[in-house]
Amino acid sequence: MDAREVLEQVKSGGISVEEAERYFQKQPYEEMGYAKLDTYREIRSGFPEVVFCSRKADVHLKNIYKRLYEENGEVFGTRASVRQYEVVQEVLPQVVYDDVSHILKIEAKDKTRIGEIAVCTAGTADIPVAEEAAQTAEYFGANVNRIYDVGVSGIHRMLSHLDVIQRANCVVAVAGMEGALASVLGGLVSRPVIAVPTSVGYGASMNGLSALLTMINSCANGIAVVNIDNGYGAGYIATQINRLAVKGE
Amino acid sequence: MDAREVLEQVKSGGISVEEAERYFQKQPYEEMGYAKLDTYREIRSGFPEVVFCSRKADVHLKNIYKRLYEENGEVFGTRASVRQYEVVQEVLPQVVYDDVSHILKIEAKDKTRIGEIAVCTAGTADIPVAEEAAQTAEYFGANVNRIYDVGVSGIHRMLSHLDVIQRANCVVAVAGMEGALASVLGGLVSRPVIAVPTSVGYGASMNGLSALLTMINSCANGIAVVNIDNGYGAGYIATQINRLAVKGE
Amino acid sequence: MDAREVLEQVKSGGISVEEAERYFQKQPYEEMGYAKLDTYREIRSGFPEVVFCSRKADVHLKNIYKRLYEENGEVFGTRASVRQYEVVQEVLPQVVYDDVSHILKIEAKDKTRIGEIAVCTAGTADIPVAEEAAQTAEYFGANVNRIYDVGVSGIHRMLSHLDVIQRANCVVAVAGMEGALASVLGGLVSRPVIAVPTSVGYGASMNGLSALLTMINSCANGIAVVNIDNGYGAGYIATQINRLAVKGE
Amino acid sequence: MDAREVLEQVKSGGISVEEAERYFQKQPYEEMGYAKLDTYREIRSGFPEVVFCSRKADVHLKNIYKRLYEENGEVFGTRASVRQYEVVQEVLPQVVYDDVSHILKIEAKDKTRIGEIAVCTAGTADIPVAEEAAQTAEYFGANVNRIYDVGVSGIHRMLSHLDVIQRANCVVAVAGMEGALASVLGGLVSRPVIAVPTSVGYGASMNGLSALLTMINSCANGIAVVNIDNGYGAGYIATQINRLAVKGE
Amino acid sequence: MDAREVLEQVKSGGISVEEAERYFQKQPYEEMGYAKLDTYREIRSGFPEVVFCSRKADVHLKNIYKRLYEENGEVFGTRASVRQYEVVQEVLPQVVYDDVSHILKIEAKDKTRIGEIAVCTAGTADIPVAEEAAQTAEYFGANVNRIYDVGVSGIHRMLSHLDVIQRANCVVAVAGMEGALASVLGGLVSRPVIAVPTSVGYGASMNGLSALLTMINSCANGIAVVNIDNGYGAGYIATQINRLAVKGE
Amino acid sequence: MDAREVLEQVKSGGISVEEAERYFQKQPYEEMGYAKLDTYREIRSGFPEVVFCSRKADVHLKNIYKRLYEENGEVFGTRASVRQYEVVQEVLPQVVYDDVSHILKIEAKDKTRIGEIAVCTAGTADIPVAEEAAQTAEYFGANVNRIYDVGVSGIHRMLSHLDVIQRANCVVAVAGMEGALASVLGGLVSRPVIAVPTSVGYGASMNGLSALLTMINSCANGIAVVNIDNGYGAGYIATQINRLAVKGE
Amino acid sequence: MDAREVLEQVKSGGISVEEAERYFQKQPYEEMGYAKLDTYREIRSGFPEVVFCSRKADVHLKNIYKRLYEENGEVFGTRASVRQYEVVQEVLPQVVYDDVSHILKIEAKDKTRIGEIAVCTAGTADIPVAEEAAQTAEYFGANVNRIYDVGVSGIHRMLSHLDVIQRANCVVAVAGMEGALASVLGGLVSRPVIAVPTSVGYGASMNGLSALLTMINSCANGIAVVNIDNGYGAGYIATQINRLAVKGE
Amino acid sequence: MDAREVLEQVKSGGISVEEAERYFQKQPYEEMGYAKLDTYREIRSGFPEVVFCSRKADVHLKNIYKRLYEENGEVFGTRASVRQYEVVQEVLPQVVYDDVSHILKIEAKDKTRIGEIAVCTAGTADIPVAEEAAQTAEYFGANVNRIYDVGVSGIHRMLSHLDVIQRANCVVAVAGMEGALASVLGGLVSRPVIAVPTSVGYGASMNGLSALLTMINSCANGIAVVNIDNGYGAGYIATQINRLAVKGE
Repeated sequence: MDAREVLEQVKSGGISVEEAERYFQKQPYEEMGYAKLDTYREIRSGFPEVVFCSRKADVHLKNIYKRLYEENGEVFGTRASVRQYEVVQEVLPQVVYDDVSHILKIEAKDKTRIGEIAVCTAGTADIPVAEEAAQTAEYFGANVNRIYDVGVSGIHRMLSHLDVIQRANCVVAVAGMEGALASVLGGLVSRPVIAVPTSVGYGASMNGLSALLTMINSCANGIAVVNIDNGYGAGYIATQINRLAVKGE
Repeated sequence: MDAREVLEQVKSGGISVEEAERYFQKQPYEEMGYAKLDTYREIRSGFPEVVFCSRKADVHLKNIYKRLYEENGEVFGTRASVRQYEVVQEVLPQVVYDDVSHILKIEAKDKTRIGEIAVCTAGTADIPVAEEAAQTAEYFGANVNRIYDVGVSGIHRMLSHLDVIQRANCVVAVAGMEGALASVLGGLVSRPVIAVPTSVGYGASMNGLSALLTMINSCANGIAVVNIDNGYGAGYIATQINRLAVKGE
Repeated sequence: MDAREVLEQVKSGGISVEEAERYFQKQPYEEMGYAKLDTYREIRSGFPEVVFCSRKADVHLKNIYKRLYEENGEVFGTRASVRQYEVVQEVLPQVVYDDVSHILKIEAKDKTRIGEIAVCTAGTADIPVAEEAAQTAEYFGANVNRIYDVGVSGIHRMLSHLDVIQRANCVVAVAGMEGALASVLGGLVSRPVIAVPTSVGYGASMNGLSALLTMINSCANGIAVVNIDNGYGAGYIATQINRLAVKGE
Repeated sequence: MDAREVLEQVKSGGISVEEAERYFQKQPYEEMGYAKLDTYREIRSGFPEVVFCSRKADVHLKNIYKRLYEENGEVFGTRASVRQYEVVQEVLPQVVYDDVSHILKIEAKDKTRIGEIAVCTAGTADIPVAEEAAQTAEYFGANVNRIYDVGVSGIHRMLSHLDVIQRANCVVAVAGMEGALASVLGGLVSRPVIAVPTSVGYGASMNGLSALLTMINSCANGIAVVNIDNGYGAGYIATQINRLAVKGE
Repeated sequence: MDAREVLEQVKSGGISVEEAERYFQKQPYEEMGYAKLDTYREIRSGFPEVVFCSRKADVHLKNIYKRLYEENGEVFGTRASVRQYEVVQEVLPQVVYDDVSHILKIEAKDKTRIGEIAVCTAGTADIPVAEEAAQTAEYFGANVNRIYDVGVSGIHRMLSHLDVIQRANCVVAVAGMEGALASVLGGLVSRPVIAVPTSVGYGASMNGLSALLTMINSCANGIAVVNIDNGYGAGYIATQINRLAVKGE
Repeated sequence: MDAREVLEQVKSGGISVEEAERYFQKQPYEEMGYAKLDTYREIRSGFPEVVFCSRKADVHLKNIYKRLYEENGEVFGTRASVRQYEVVQEVLPQVVYDDVSHILKIEAKDKTRIGEIAVCTAGTADIPVAEEAAQTAEYFGANVNRIYDVGVSGIHRMLSHLDVIQRANCVVAVAGMEGALASVLGGLVSRPVIAVPTSVGYGASMNGLSALLTMINSCANGIAVVNIDNGYGAGYIATQINRLAVKGE
Repeated sequence: MDAREVLEQVKSGGISVEEAERYFQKQPYEEMGYAKLDTYREIRSGFPEVVFCSRKADVHLKNIYKRLYEENGEVFGTRASVRQYEVVQEVLPQVVYDDVSHILKIEAKDKTRIGEIAVCTAGTADIPVAEEAAQTAEYFGANVNRIYDVGVSGIHRMLSHLDVIQRANCVVAVAGMEGALASVLGGLVSRPVIAVPTSVGYGASMNGLSALLTMINSCANGIAVVNIDNGYGAGYIATQINRLAVKGE
Repeated sequence: MDAREVLEQVKSGGISVEEAERYFQKQPYEEMGYAKLDTYREIRSGFPEVVFCSRKADVHLKNIYKRLYEENGEVFGTRASVRQYEVVQEVLPQVVYDDVSHILKIEAKDKTRIGEIAVCTAGTADIPVAEEAAQTAEYFGANVNRIYDVGVSGIHRMLSHLDVIQRANCVVAVAGMEGALASVLGGLVSRPVIAVPTSVGYGASMNGLSALLTMINSCANGIAVVNIDNGYGAGYIATQINRLAVKGE
C-alpha cells in the first residue's frame, strides 16, 4: 500500500487518521526505553536483528535475548564473552556458545540452507574472524565451505582448493598481517570477493590497519572490503549476494 | 576439462603432450614485452581486460588499445586524459571520450543490458566518480539508474527516490567529505551497498581518507568498500552481483 | 501544520489527496538534472542555500547563480576563483567578488544586521579564512567585529582588545600553525568559541591537521571546532548562535 | 571598574597601591599548592569550576571536593571511578555517583532549569557519553531531552522524534563508529548541532578518530565538534547557547 | 623432473595419472584440519617450518610441536610464553625455553655452523629481539657474534668492535627509539645490513613505528628492513645471505 | 620599573594616569590595519621582529620592510622569493637577497659577533635550511661555524671536525631522510644540540616527518627539536643559548 | 690532551704504545656483558650516566646501581617502579624513591646548586613529568622554581608568576592536551623555552602526539621540543643551558 | 697496518706524527667545499660513489660528474632530469641518459658481469623503479633478469616464469598499490627477496605507504624492504648479496 492509497483510504474512511499517522511516521519499532528493537527489521531487510554483545549491560543483554527469542523463535549475537554466555543462560538455558567465533545463539531446527559461500583465511590465527563470518552466513541460511590456512606465502595450498573457491557465489577472504590473500583470490575467481582484514599481526600491522590498506588498494577486480575483524559484516553481505544468486530477481 | 581429465586424455592419446603442457603452463596471456595482455581473461572471469590509462606511455597505450580492439571488437579504458584520447584516435578514429568520467572506449553496438544497479552520489562533485562506476557497469552489460546529489544533509532528497534505489540488485554509494551516504542507504535497502569514498572535500577530508574510514566503520549492514575514487572497481563488483541476481547460479 | 492535522484535513476534505501526497513526499527541491536546488531551505533552516563554487562546471555555476538570484533576489558563493567571477558576470553583471575571502555574491540592499560576533585571527595569513567567516555572518545578518593578528606569541595584543571580544555573542577563533588562540580565548570569554583551524604553517603543521588537533584537545571550556579553513561553516554556526542570543526563543 | 578608574582611585587615594596591584595582577584564585582553584570563575564565566576526577590523587580529590562544596554549596565532577566515589564519601557523605555517566556530584536543591537542549545518540553504547553531556547541561541549569539509539542505519527511528529535536535551542549529537548522525541532524534542524564523537567501535574506528573526522568533514551546515568522548564539553557549550537563546543579550 | 617429462611419463605409462595429478596439484603438505603443515618446506626453501607460538591454542601447539619433532628430529618456535613452555613439556619433556628470546625449541645435537653473522643492538632493552634473531640464525646453522649496547649516542662503543662487525657476511642491526644504529653501521661495512626496528621507546616512538621510518629512510646504502620486533625474520634472511656467502652458487 | 613602582609613581604624581594606563594596557605595538608590528619586541625579548615573507601580499611586504627598516636601521626576513626581492627593492634598493637561504635583509654595518655556534648538515640538500639557521644567528650577533655534509653514513667525515663542533656553545644539527645526525652529535658534545629535521628525502620520509620523529625519539641527551625546515627557529634559540654562554647572567 | 699531543708523547717516549693505543681505541667504558657502562661519560659530557629503569631486569638493575654508586658516590635513575625501589634497596638500603616523579636515587650531600630554571605545567596531571624534569635539573646542580597549574585556559594564573618565569635562564614548559602553554610562554620570555608534551589527555590527544605537534608548530620564537613525557631530557638540556649562563664560556 | 703498528712506527720514527695524525683522523676524503666526495669509498665498501641528482644545483652537478669520471673512468647518477642530462653533456658529451629509469651515466666498456639477480614488477607502471634497480645492479657488475607485469591478480603470469626467478641469487620485488607481490615471491623462492614499494596507485595507496606496510608485514620469510621507489637501494643490496653468492667468503 503506497502513500496515495493510504491517503485515499483516509479520505474514504477505510483507515483511521491514527493508523495513517503511524504509517507516515515510519515508526515500526518497539520502544524499550534503553534501546529500540527493530522487530520489523526482518520484513524490511530480509534479515532478523542481530545482537552486538560487546559492552552491553547484563540486564539489557538478558532482556534483549529473551525478547528477540520470543519474537523470532531464534536469536543470534556476536562478540559475546564467556561471562555473557552464563548471564544469558539464566533466562535461556538452551543458548549455545562457540568460543572460537564468540557467537552466542539459539538457532531454529531444520532450517534450509541455500547456495554456496567460500570462507578462506590466510593463517590459523584468522579463524575466529572467519568463523564469525561463516556462522553468520549459515544462520542467515547459506551453505558455507571453509578453506583455512591458505595464505599467499604458500600459494600451492590455495591452488589445490581452487575448484571449491571458484564455484562459490561469493568468496570471503579473511587475512591479517599483510592481507595479500584477497588480491590473489580476486585474480582467480569470477564472483565477488568480500575482504576482511584482521587484527592478526604485530609491529607495523597496526592492529589490522595495514591489512585494510592492502585490501582497499588491491589491484585485482571484484573486491570490496569491510572493517577490521568484521566477520559478521562479511557474512551478512555474502549472504545477500548468495541469496540474489540463488533466487535471482 | 579439469586436470585429471587432461591427464587421462594424455594417457589415452586424446590430446598431445604439447597441448597438455600448454594447459598446465597456465600461460594464457600475450607477451608484449612491456606488458602481458590477459587475453583469456574474459573466459576465466567473464570480464574483458580493461585499460588503466593513467601514466601509460603513448606508444604502449596505442598498441594496447589496438590489440584489445582487434581481439574483442571493443575496448574500454579508464582515467584517460584528453591528450591520450587524441593519441588513441590516431590508430582507432572511432574511439569515444567522455570528459566527465574520463572513460575512453569503443563499445560494440546492440549489446543487451540486464538487471538494475542504482548509482547514488552525495553531491554534484562526486559525479565524475559515479559516472566511472555507472559507465563501467553499462559497458559490462548492466542497466544503471543514476540518483545524484542526494547527500545526507538533505535527507528528503534521498527519501523521494527510495523506490528506485530499493529495487536495484546492487546500490553504489559515492560520497566524499564525511561519506555518510552509504550508512543511510545501508539502513534503507535489502541489497548489497558498494561504497565508494571520493577525494571531494578539503582540510581534514585528507583526500578521501576520512570518507573511506566513515564507510569502513559503517554501523549499517550490507556495506563493503572500494578504494577512494575507484568508480571502476565499484562498477565491476556491482556488475558481478547484478549478473548473479539476474542469472542465478 | 503537522502530519495529524494534514490527515484530518484530508479526512474532512479540507485539502485534497494530491496536496497531502505532496506534503508527505517531502520533495521541496527543484530538480536541475545535475543538482537538486534546495529552494525551500530558507523556510526549513532559516538560511538560504549557498554555493560552494570550487570544482563546479562553468555552465552549472552560471545556471545555479542565475536560478538562486531569481528565487531569492540575492546569491552568495564561497571558494570562487577569479575565472568563475568572470563566468558568472556574463549572466549576472552586478555580481561582486572579494579576492581575499574568495566570496562571489550579489547582496540585497538595506539588510538589517543584528547582534555581535567577534572574528579573531592569530596571524595575518589567517585573514582569508577569517574574512570568509566574517562576510558569511554579515550576509546572514550579523554584525561582525574583526580582531586580527592577536596570536598567543604576543598575548598583550589580544588582551588589549578583550572588551570587544568579551561582549560578542559568539567568538570565532581562526588560527593555523599550533592553533593555540582558541584555548586562550576560551579561558577569557563566557560565550561560545567556534574554532577554525587553518592550513597556514609548514612542516609538521600538516596542512592544518596539527591546529585542528590542538583545538579539539583544548583544555578550555566552551570551544567547538569546524573543518580546516572552513570559515563559511564557522560564520554559519556563529550566526545561528547570534540569532538565538538576539531573538531568544 | 576598569583600569583607568582604578588608576584614578590610586591617584586620589581611593584605593591603596596594594589593592591596585592585586587588581592588575589578575590573581583572583586560591593557591592550594598542588592546584589553583579558580573560585572567581563563576563570576567571570557564569559557570562554577568542575572537577576532572580522572588521575587525581585521593587526598587532592577529597580536599578539592570539600573546598568547592564549601564555597558553592554544590560540587560537580566528571570521569570519577567507583573508588573515587568512596573516597569523597568519607568527607562528603551526601555525594551522589552515577555509574553510567561517571559523574560524582552534590547538587543544590530546587534549582530552576531553563530552555531546551536535545541530546541524541546513534547507539546504546554511546549513552555514557551522552549522559555526561545531559547531566552537565542539567547541572548548569538547562532542560534536556534525551533521544537515544536513533543512528542513521535506521533513519525512521530518528524521523519519528524530529519535533522534539527541532524545537531544541541546541542539539548534541553523540555517535561512535562512522559518526554520521551529526550530518543527518544538521540537515534537519535550524539550531546549532554540537557533535561528540565517541570511542565506540572497533578496527578502523581508531578509538573515535574516524567518527571525529566524519563530523569535522560534515557536509551539513551548523555543526561544530568537540573531542572524542567529551560529553562534558558538549554539555557546557550547549548550555552557553541555551542561555543565550533564553535570556537573549 | 619438469612438466613435459611428467606428461611424457604419463603417456608412456611410466607414472600413473594419480601420481601426475599430485604433481600438478602442487600439494606437498599434510592436512591437519586446523592447519596445513608444510613438511616439504625444508626441501623447497632449505629451511624447516618454524612455529609462531603466539595466540596458538594449547592443544594445537602440542600437536604441532610433536608432529614437527617426529618429522625433523628437532623443532623451533618463537614468541612462546612460559605457560606454553609448560604445555609443550607435557608431550616433549626435553623442550628448552629461553626467557629472553621467548624461543621454545628442541635442537638436534652436533649441528655444524657455518660463516659469520653479526647481531648488534643499540641498547640493552633491544636484546630480546636480538636474541630471537641470533638464536634463529644459529638454529638454521650460522655462527653468530653478538655486539650489544653500541647505540649511536656513544659511538666509541661501536667503533671499538668494528673489526668483528666488518668481517660478518651479514649484519643485523636491532634498535628502537630513533633507530639510527642501522645508518651508522651501513656506512661502515661492505656487507648487507638487515635492520630490525624494535618497540623499545615511549612517546613519539609509537611502538617502533618511528624506528621503522628511520631505517626505511636511511641515507646509507646496503640496508633493508624487516617488521618491528621481527628478530626471527632478520635471522632468517641473514641466514640466507650467510649461506650464499659460504657456499657460493 | 615593575607594576608596584608604576603604581607608587601614580600615587606620588611621578607619572600621569595616562602613562600608567598605557603601561598596563601592554600595548607596545603599532597597528597597521592588516598587521600589528611588535616594535617594542627588541626591548622585551632582546630580538628585533623578523618578517616571515611567505604568502605576504606585495603591498604589505613593502610597507613592513620599510617601517621596520626605519625603526631599527636594519631588517631581516625569511622565506622570501626572488619576486619578493624585486618588490622590496622598489622601496629599499639596498636590500640583499641570498638565493640559498631565501633570506632578504638589510644588515647594519660593523655589528659585533660573539661566541660560537656550530651548524652541521647531514647532506648537501640540507644546506638551504642550515643557511637559514646560520645567517639568522649571524644577524642576531653570533659567530657561526658551518660543517656541512657530515651525515652518519660516513661517520669518519664528522669525526674529523669534532674539535670545532665540540667547542661551540650550541650545535645546530640539520638533517632530512632518517635524521640520525642529531643523535650521533648528541653523544659527542657536552653543549645543547638543536635538531632541525628537513623535508629532504622521498617516499617514507613523508616530507620530514620521519626525520622529526627520529630526532624527537633520540636516545642521546641534550637534544631538543624545532619544526621541519625551521632553520630560523633553530638559529634563534641557538643565539639565545650562545648569548647566555658569553654574557653569563 | 688531543691526538697530536698523544702522538708526540709516543714519539718522545712520554707515554707507552699501549697507553696510546687505549687512547685511540676510544673504549672508555666498562663491559658488563649485558651492558656497557659509560663510566668516562662525566668527563666527556660533564654529566654522570643516568639509569633508565623501565624494563631493566632486576639483577641487572641491582648491579648497575651498585656499580655506578661505587664509581660516583651517587646514582640517579628515572622511570623506576615501587618494586624496583625494593629491589635496589636490597643492595643499597639508603636509596630514595619519589612516587610522583618515579625517580630512584642516592644523592651526595651538600651539593651546590647554581643559576635558575623555571619548570611550568599547564595542569596538575602534568606534575609527574615536571617533577622528573625539576629533580633531574636539581641532581645535576641547578636551582629550580616550580610554577604549576598555569595553563592557558586561565591566562591570569600564569601572568601573576611572570617575574619568576622571566628571570630564569631556561624555562621548561610541560603540558598535555592541546599543549598551548609553550607558545604563550615563548612570547613572554627572552630565554630558551624547552617544551615537554605530556600524554595527559584523552580522545584526539593521541597520548601526547597532539601536544607534541602543537609545540613543534609553535608560532613563538625560542622554543624547542623533547619527546612526550620526557621530563628527564628537558631537565638535562635545561641544565646545560643554565650552566652556560652561569659559568659563561 | 693497524693502530698498534702505526704507533710503533711513530715511536721508531718510521712515520711522522703528521702522517699518524691523519691516519687516526680517518679523513680519507677530498674536500670540495660544498660536498665531501668519498673517493676512497670504492676501497672501503667495494662500491664507487653514486650521484643522487635530484635537487643538485647545476654547477655542483657538473663538477661532481666531471670529478668522479676523472677519478673512476665512469660515473653513475640516479633521479636525473632531462635538463640535468643537458647540463652534464656540456662537460661530458658522452654521458648517456635513460628516460625510463632516469639514470645518467658513463659506463666503462667491457665490464664483466657475474651471478644472477631477478627483478620482478607487479605492473607496467612499476617499471621505472625496477629499471633503476636493474641498471644499478648491472652497473655494479651483476647479471639481471627482468620479469615485469607479473602481479598477483594474475598469478599464472608469475608461475610461468618461476624457474628464472628461483635460480636467482637475490630477487627484487617491485610493486605499488597493495604490494602483495613480495609475499607471493617470498613463498616460492629460497633466496632473499628485497621488496621495493612504489608510489604507483591512488587514493588509499598514500603514495606508496600502503605498499610499504604490506611488504613490512609480509607473512612470508626471507623478505626485507627498502624505501618507496628506492630502486637504487634495492639494486645495491641485491648486488652485495649476489657478490657474496658468487665469490663466497
